[in-house]
Amino acid sequence: MRLSRSFLPTLKETPADAQIVSHRLMLRAGLVRQTASGIYAWLPAGLRVLRRISQIVREEQDAVGAQEVLMPTLQPAELWKRSGRYDAYGPEMLRLTDRHERDLLYGPTNEEMITDLFGQSVSSYRALPQTLYHIQWKFRDEVRPRFGVMRGREFLMKDAYSFDADYAGAVASYRRMMLAYLRTFQRLGVKAIPMVADTGPIGGELSHEFIILAPTGESGVFYDGALEEQDWLGQPVDIDDHASLEAFFERMTSFYAATDEKHDEAAWAGVDPSRRREGRGIEVGHIFYFGTKYTEAMGVSVNGADGQSFFPEMGSYGIGVSRLVGAIIEASHDEAGIIWPDEVAPFDAVILNLKSGDPACDALCERLYQTAPDRLLYDDRPDRAGVKFADADLMGHPWQLVVGPRGAAAGVVELKRRATGERTEHSVEDALSRIGLGS
Amino acid sequence: MRLSRSFLPTLKETPADAQIVSHRLMLRAGLVRQTASGIYAWLPAGLRVLRRISQIVREEQDAVGAQEVLMPTLQPAELWKRSGRYDAYGPEMLRLTDRHERDLLYGPTNEEMITDLFGQSVSSYRALPQTLYHIQWKFRDEVRPRFGVMRGREFLMKDAYSFDADYAGAVASYRRMMLAYLRTFQRLGVKAIPMVADTGPIGGELSHEFIILAPTGESGVFYDGALEEQDWLGQPVDIDDHASLEAFFERMTSFYAATDEKHDEAAWAGVDPSRRREGRGIEVGHIFYFGTKYTEAMGVSVNGADGQSFFPEMGSYGIGVSRLVGAIIEASHDEAGIIWPDEVAPFDAVILNLKSGDPACDALCERLYQTAPDRLLYDDRPDRAGVKFADADLMGHPWQLVVGPRGAAAGVVELKRRATGERTEHSVEDALSRIGLGS
Repeated sequence: MRLSRSFLPTLKETPADAQIVSHRLMLRAGLVRQTASGIYAWLPAGLRVLRRISQIVREEQDAVGAQEVLMPTLQPAELWKRSGRYDAYGPEMLRLTDRHERDLLYGPTNEEMITDLFGQSVSSYRALPQTLYHIQWKFRDEVRPRFGVMRGREFLMKDAYSFDADYAGAVASYRRMMLAYLRTFQRLGVKAIPMVADTGPIGGELSHEFIILAPTGESGVFYDGALEEQDWLGQPVDIDDHASLEAFFERMTSFYAATDEKHDEAAWAGVDPSRRREGRGIEVGHIFYFGTKYTEAMGVSVNGADGQSFFPEMGSYGIGVSRLVGAIIEASHDEAGIIWPDEVAPFDAVILNLKSGDPACDALCERLYQTAPDRLLYDDRPDRAGVKFADADLMGHPWQLVVGPRGAAAGVVELKRRATGERTEHSVEDALSRIGLGS
Repeated sequence: MRLSRSFLPTLKETPADAQIVSHRLMLRAGLVRQTASGIYAWLPAGLRVLRRISQIVREEQDAVGAQEVLMPTLQPAELWKRSGRYDAYGPEMLRLTDRHERDLLYGPTNEEMITDLFGQSVSSYRALPQTLYHIQWKFRDEVRPRFGVMRGREFLMKDAYSFDADYAGAVASYRRMMLAYLRTFQRLGVKAIPMVADTGPIGGELSHEFIILAPTGESGVFYDGALEEQDWLGQPVDIDDHASLEAFFERMTSFYAATDEKHDEAAWAGVDPSRRREGRGIEVGHIFYFGTKYTEAMGVSVNGADGQSFFPEMGSYGIGVSRLVGAIIEASHDEAGIIWPDEVAPFDAVILNLKSGDPACDALCERLYQTAPDRLLYDDRPDRAGVKFADADLMGHPWQLVVGPRGAAAGVVELKRRATGERTEHSVEDALSRIGLGS
């Protein structure tokens, strides 16, 4: 994309109402703009990040056998009356009425709807297990929306729901999803630690929150730093084998991790002091096993092998996709701006033309740009080099390809790695191949 | 995907309340389920189609230089008060109030919001032209939602908005988008004819609707059948050259096409009678040029080259993405079910195991399946061959790979093309290469 023709509006000033660094940087780097309290429009660079995160989430859901669906944003109130949550859910639920005076709500979560859809279509134990997920916009009417997309009102979430014939199956589904989450967060480059948690309004008896350390977080957290070092992508877990899933789960839970609500001082005392991590954390995912709570309340049963009907066992599993954009920035930035991990960056690299209008610089930049116009941002503006360097650091592209008159004459490009600041000189081919665009 | 483990619930009976063929087939083939009047959940096969259509729309928008953003579903009422449309828009607009008694609405369209976003970020003529688009769920509170996703209430739409410095630029943007639309519909395999149309509530002076023939359509249409034969993908139009765009546009508009509101009997008499097409049609896209209507009403101006500020000229451009799923089925089906065009099919092919449990059949099917598990549906259910054939025709996969005991013994696969019914026998390698999965 050519920057001169792009809708990538960066801001020089720090917005006054943005209290945390990710919110400030998302506004300054032109990723989002607020359109109403806690509601944001995603501009081109921000949307690219959101879509790349969604795609990683999707791939890891698919990898554990979950199937993608898409439920609507608006739900009929009757569904929630069947489960008993319509009255129980507080003012965070946005309720509305259509032109025929029918009560609707903007879905804050989808247990009721998925249970109803499942019940309409599945009548036999033979169709189990099933795990269905979707990536959809949700709404929670927070009293005081703040921290940008970290605690907005309209937000993008992946939520998955599992249906199993029995407890053992439900636990296996829970563990598969735990593995998918650990792999997802590892690919995203965030240290999201699974912690034993309260089940809250979803209900149930087994629950983990995935929490990243952040000073603005809502909970106190305590965990064994060894959890940050695990390589979940490298672990050979057979997701169809209960024993293999159990071994993985045992290993994961052998490390201490808990929110303050569940903190156990005795167990904490057993963690090597050098590995104790303690602070505030913000939730980016939450998984629950809650048995037959919804299938029973909504009367959704299937026929068993013995001819008797039974209520399937369920779990639900959320990831805050739009919140993760903020969370990744909280985890990966410096004074100058964002430092995007390669896997989620809006562009692989920016081309900085230090003398736009100079024939040799323009020609070399154009040659670089044409190798992958969709993955490269070309700063072709007639601005000073200082402005371009500052915007490139602010926007956080993993690589900068710097082209000046001296280099253009010699056919040489300066390559800067955003994360380390390291600068090296290369031939065009060599520079492209280092950023993964070589032929 | 293995059918035995998939959430692809087909129905044998025709749903009583579905009046048109696409609605009936979408329910029977397990693509969608209604969750409230005019609101649908997309099941795995339906979502795959929706995502493939979205991707084609996206590619053709990108190809004419439009940039993708994502605006939220909910909008503040103030924006619409600024343009004057808050009171003018009727009961189709879903209005709601949040916990702080602020007025919101579920966006039926986005002219106000995009104009506001543009105004916040662009201050100079140098940033023009800009065309921004998004693919987002919208809501129109139809009095009587019907025809399934063809006239639902919550629906997925692509809408684009162009900003230009002058009339000539705005017309060029309009023509670029016209080209993108013709190419999009051609790739989707639907004959969507651009027709001069009234501008309606969006306003403006230049407008085309893209209409496909359908007996349930809301307008009468008249057009020259030569329009159906044009190859817009093959036309070398230089989108940066106004003269090239004009030549393309002149050629396109040289063929007669109009809705009944704009029908001109004198011009119609000049169309070769053998090429006259007349009937009812349903709108799948609509493009508008409306000048400074919104920039002026909302006070959004930019600085010109001469130092004087001016109001940019705008156009807006919609495609009904979820409606297109129904429209494609209306255009491509037979008595037995859907016939998906290759470009939008949920799966490239289905593998029909005529004797599940037979070791030779299972082994051959598994071998086929493993070549591309994500692009193939494997009907591994222990059902009768008749059930599998019927479901395969109903679901409309472009190809069927049929494996029976006789073929499995000989290493031979029967390949059926859904569109023509043609059946041929092939070696495994040959069959895979014919459906584009060969090595």
